[in-house]
Amino acid sequence: MVNNTEKLKWWGWGREGESYSIRNPQGFWSFLEQNLGPLQQSTRVSSLNDISLPPSRLALKDLEDLRQLFGEKDVTIDDTDRIIHSFGKSYVDLLRIRRGTVERAPDVVVFPQRQEQIQDLLALASRKSWAVVPFGGGTSVVGGVEVPEDSKPSVTLDLRRMNRVLQIDRNSYTAVVQSGVMGPALEKELNASGFTLGHFPQSFEFSTLGGWVATRSAGQNSTKYGKIENMVTSLRLVSPTGVLDSPMVPADAAGPSLLQCLIGSEGALGVITQAVVRLHPLPQSRAFGAYLFSDFASGVDAVKKMLQADLRPAVLRLSDPEETAMALLLAQSPRPSIKERLGHLYIRLSGFDLHSGALLLLIFEGPERLVSVAKKEAHRYARAGLYLGSLPARNWIKERFRHPYIRDDLLDRSVMVDTLETAAHWQKLPEIYAAVRQALSDSILATASGALVFGHLSHGYSDGASLYFTFMAKQQPGQELAQWQTVKTAATEAILKHGGALSHHHGIGSMHKIWTSTYLGKEGFSLLAELKNKLDPQNIMNPGKLFDASPES
Amino acid sequence: MVNNTEKLKWWGWGREGESYSIRNPQGFWSFLEQNLGPLQQSTRVSSLNDISLPPSRLALKDLEDLRQLFGEKDVTIDDTDRIIHSFGKSYVDLLRIRRGTVERAPDVVVFPQRQEQIQDLLALASRKSWAVVPFGGGTSVVGGVEVPEDSKPSVTLDLRRMNRVLQIDRNSYTAVVQSGVMGPALEKELNASGFTLGHFPQSFEFSTLGGWVATRSAGQNSTKYGKIENMVTSLRLVSPTGVLDSPMVPADAAGPSLLQCLIGSEGALGVITQAVVRLHPLPQSRAFGAYLFSDFASGVDAVKKMLQADLRPAVLRLSDPEETAMALLLAQSPRPSIKERLGHLYIRLSGFDLHSGALLLLIFEGPERLVSVAKKEAHRYARAGLYLGSLPARNWIKERFRHPYIRDDLLDRSVMVDTLETAAHWQKLPEIYAAVRQALSDSILATASGALVFGHLSHGYSDGASLYFTFMAKQQPGQELAQWQTVKTAATEAILKHGGALSHHHGIGSMHKIWTSTYLGKEGFSLLAELKNKLDPQNIMNPGKLFDASPES
Repeated sequence: MVNNTEKLKWWGWGREGESYSIRNPQGFWSFLEQNLGPLQQSTRVSSLNDISLPPSRLALKDLEDLRQLFGEKDVTIDDTDRIIHSFGKSYVDLLRIRRGTVERAPDVVVFPQRQEQIQDLLALASRKSWAVVPFGGGTSVVGGVEVPEDSKPSVTLDLRRMNRVLQIDRNSYTAVVQSGVMGPALEKELNASGFTLGHFPQSFEFSTLGGWVATRSAGQNSTKYGKIENMVTSLRLVSPTGVLDSPMVPADAAGPSLLQCLIGSEGALGVITQAVVRLHPLPQSRAFGAYLFSDFASGVDAVKKMLQADLRPAVLRLSDPEETAMALLLAQSPRPSIKERLGHLYIRLSGFDLHSGALLLLIFEGPERLVSVAKKEAHRYARAGLYLGSLPARNWIKERFRHPYIRDDLLDRSVMVDTLETAAHWQKLPEIYAAVRQALSDSILATASGALVFGHLSHGYSDGASLYFTFMAKQQPGQELAQWQTVKTAATEAILKHGGALSHHHGIGSMHKIWTSTYLGKEGFSLLAELKNKLDPQNIMNPGKLFDASPES
Repeated sequence: MVNNTEKLKWWGWGREGESYSIRNPQGFWSFLEQNLGPLQQSTRVSSLNDISLPPSRLALKDLEDLRQLFGEKDVTIDDTDRIIHSFGKSYVDLLRIRRGTVERAPDVVVFPQRQEQIQDLLALASRKSWAVVPFGGGTSVVGGVEVPEDSKPSVTLDLRRMNRVLQIDRNSYTAVVQSGVMGPALEKELNASGFTLGHFPQSFEFSTLGGWVATRSAGQNSTKYGKIENMVTSLRLVSPTGVLDSPMVPADAAGPSLLQCLIGSEGALGVITQAVVRLHPLPQSRAFGAYLFSDFASGVDAVKKMLQADLRPAVLRLSDPEETAMALLLAQSPRPSIKERLGHLYIRLSGFDLHSGALLLLIFEGPERLVSVAKKEAHRYARAGLYLGSLPARNWIKERFRHPYIRDDLLDRSVMVDTLETAAHWQKLPEIYAAVRQALSDSILATASGALVFGHLSHGYSDGASLYFTFMAKQQPGQELAQWQTVKTAATEAILKHGGALSHHHGIGSMHKIWTSTYLGKEGFSLLAELKNKLDPQNIMNPGKLFDASPES
């Protein structure tokens, strides 16, 4: 097996041996059973060795050619490598891998170290009609890195060895960075020069710059720093038909945006090998705040007004009452301390209810005086809520990368658990929020005895925001995939019906592709598909994703 | 003639009867003659009736068809209408029209009132292989609306009757607006609802929303509000092959940006018929400031630091010493008042020189407290400069739409006068500034006895800014076009050599098209050209611009 720098779970989220520590497990699981019905332990294959996968279809001669091209150690047909490169981190992916089912795996995994190797590989793949799947951190939750169903060999291109920060321009506040760098390594190097990119998606620890750019990722601080497409000022894409470099300028007026034609291309136009990103100075100061609103709607109203009054907290996160209650459940100790009890008493006496209110977390960061006045201004707009001090937001930021680990515990107990997101203009937001919740509940309850559905608003804009939903139910034994697909379809159709974004930051991959043409319009979809026809006329790049409007095979 | 709402100069800028009032004409003209040599009055044709133009090539039957489609009064082959739709407002355009030379004019001008008429026209034009030139305010300075050289008839589509604000969403802070609305009418309607778009290009009074979107326009307040591509959240484009609507969402992750494929399309992909734009509340407060720096470089350093410390003045404009001196010359009364003299004395005693310093104008706007703290913070970064109070910025904003009128006076005196712009990362900015100045001076002085070259920095970003240059010289009689082309070419080559944007906000049109492939790279250019092949396979839409890499015919 080709070593990664640290051991990651192949059957779940994050690092081996790590998990989310629930402070009051008994309370948590009994709450879940109250709502979902009795939960059963599920089993999973205990070792990678127990997983059977189709043999590599690569001819020996081709393997030799690849070894010539990349060097012996950067080409692998080892089963372990092939398995861990065969899927991402969606619920569906984990469901399959825990069962030991790997229907399709890359026939070979290569680790390029130089752009020229990628160009040569694409030329070779074009001649051989291989599929090429670019792979960053492999955290896609939309089937973005899976191997296409095809009779031809598929090469997965793991970019994590092209991981250098090539240049930091301290004058322009930009950096030239190779696409395979992972979040923590990138931030560490930028921080050492006094900078941050300001991009912290939930997958931050395990995903790459190239993956962020390819999927139009949004970080948890996007309300201030923007989505990745606002952070990149130029990029390089190696396509089967040539190398594209968008102009390295802060802005221009030279026709349609070449840069924005390449961002979001999900590996289907070519391989993003490097990007020039805008940097920010490490924040001089931070201000944390939390508010409890009596309901979601009054919280939405407050954050809308903040955003429309030029306030741009780095983090803005408004949980609905169900998510607020869940957060409380997870944070609560089995025996609340006197301090905790006093806090709850204070909240009740103030006329609010922690179990039915909507929690807003705000984190402002930047130059000290701007942060200070912004926090004060925000406070005025949050008047309808009860100020809870800075602790909830401080705790959240400490734990923010721990949350996804809990999914593994839920899967261990046969819980169907997934998340999905959209974005909408303020005018449509309440309707979409209600419609998606309803679609999730209704479609879950069609086959399950109980459902938990909760959500939050984050990633705010002056004209709208994203909505992020989580749903849980007991798995329907033997029908797990069909059960999930029904729920996913119901939610997505509700989003599209009410004018929401097909995805705000997870991307299309193979999971959303059947809706892309509806979402963009037939004419719009076919215009974007033309980019594909031009750069990848043989459809060797990540086939079966994004530009492929056929139902998932 | 088809009436416009107000009488505009066909031979120059803006409204008939209006001009820039120079407070000390004698001082101004003698300064120019000192620098450029003796100036001569130039003549221009005095009436539109003196202009001869090729007859309309439209067949009577086709004219009948168009009248059927648009109604009698919205189709014109009147010479006056054809002349005023035959060019934009570049130096080259004005040079030609003042001579009475109209080599090519639209064969017919139509004024659609509904989208369906545009669809029908494009279908008809496709059948007949006509060229279709979309026309907004006609203020292009890059040959964006001129009639292509071709043996086939050309139809100019004047969109100014599709000028309604269809909807203002007071909740989402967005508006759905037809593309033919002009700046003042749009702002008036938005202002009445308490909003502004925040887009004030130099051409504001005479240009349209559609024109701004088609050319990636930047307004004078772009440092706060962004360029037009940041203001538009969705748009509709009617192309020869169909109608495209980009999704109406604040942000998404659904592949390459369809929206950003259509913005900047300069009429060459189709007709932009409407856009959804983001609105801002009318600013609660404004703060004005002006500083004098001892040189351009120290001013650049100050504004860079402001922008990199999260400060976003609406207006940020740093003139180089030559432009500062010119501004002073234009503002000065023949006999300075005691107050003016005292002001100058104060500046000299502070160790600065108004005639060799660099003037920075700042205007902050927005919520009162944010504006107040931002102005104070900016003051700290501008320490190297001398604070001049608020008056210079207040005066500038009062006069900002008057400045272009002065070009007509210069043309009346046989002065070659033009402007050009670029944008660059901070690291490259000083070099580009020097190289473009040098290229302008050298190329001018190759044939003229004197040159005036000045510039300013505006449109600031954290990673760079735009540079805007003005140049003046005596016209070379009989060689006016060749003289200008030499200078333009020298400046553009200097920009490209040093990594600047081919254009920051004027666009490509026919003027910059020969450099587009160099700027975007062959692969990049051909990818964008594929958008054209897809939407307009017969090349009927604004041919000879943007996507046409052949030298200007």
